[in-house]
Amino acid sequence: MIKNLEHIGIAVKDLKAANELYTTLLGTPPYKAEEVASEHVVTSFFKMGEAKVELLEATSPNSAIAKFIEKRGEGIHHVAFEVDDILAEMQRLGAEGFTLLNKEPKRGADNKLVCFIHPKSANGVLVELCQELKI
Amino acid sequence: MIKNLEHIGIAVKDLKAANELYTTLLGTPPYKAEEVASEHVVTSFFKMGEAKVELLEATSPNSAIAKFIEKRGEGIHHVAFEVDDILAEMQRLGAEGFTLLNKEPKRGADNKLVCFIHPKSANGVLVELCQELKI
Repeated sequence: MIKNLEHIGIAVKDLKAANELYTTLLGTPPYKAEEVASEHVVTSFFKMGEAKVELLEATSPNSAIAKFIEKRGEGIHHVAFEVDDILAEMQRLGAEGFTLLNKEPKRGADNKLVCFIHPKSANGVLVELCQELKI
Repeated sequence: MIKNLEHIGIAVKDLKAANELYTTLLGTPPYKAEEVASEHVVTSFFKMGEAKVELLEATSPNSAIAKFIEKRGEGIHHVAFEVDDILAEMQRLGAEGFTLLNKEPKRGADNKLVCFIHPKSANGVLVELCQELKI
């Protein structure tokens, strides 16, 4: 079951400059920063009520964020929805014909297991399913 | 003051088909539909925790949604943040150098006063400020 809109991810060229701009825009500083080496990104998070705004800068030209910016420019890269059981949701949505971009949940930022759904399955929107890791 | 991420807006070509797809994806049907004649759009809303997903279909080629889809294809069109005082936020952000797309708050969907900030001011993101209308 999908529970709530967890965050939006915004692809930026320069995280430091974007952190300053979004601190002014949103009226609050990022509450954490995190590198996700496996995805070749550095990220920062702003709390906006129940949801978050994530800024992402590529650390390698091979990063999906670098490719996104090269093709479309900076902007909203994905929207993430929190689920209670990511395996069950992946199975449900796969069976419904949605194209899952990873066959197994993978470790994302913010202590989450994540799975992405191809934009062609969702009116041009890159959708992330995420579930908090219990340790 | 900006309080929370209120909704994301997704530009779609066919609202009826997108409603069906997002009902399957999100596991819940839209809880309301609304035409905003002044903006030449029909919309639907899905509740996702505290935030909402808004789908928008243009009703005229002059609609900003039609132009967005023509240029970029379907996808996430804007992100909206709820504010407690839209006039104060417009003044604050204008003074900080953000480009406001309307000089006065205008009536948007979902019983809101809204103001848009130009994407060039916010790393390619079209930002909407919105405040619930008290009647």
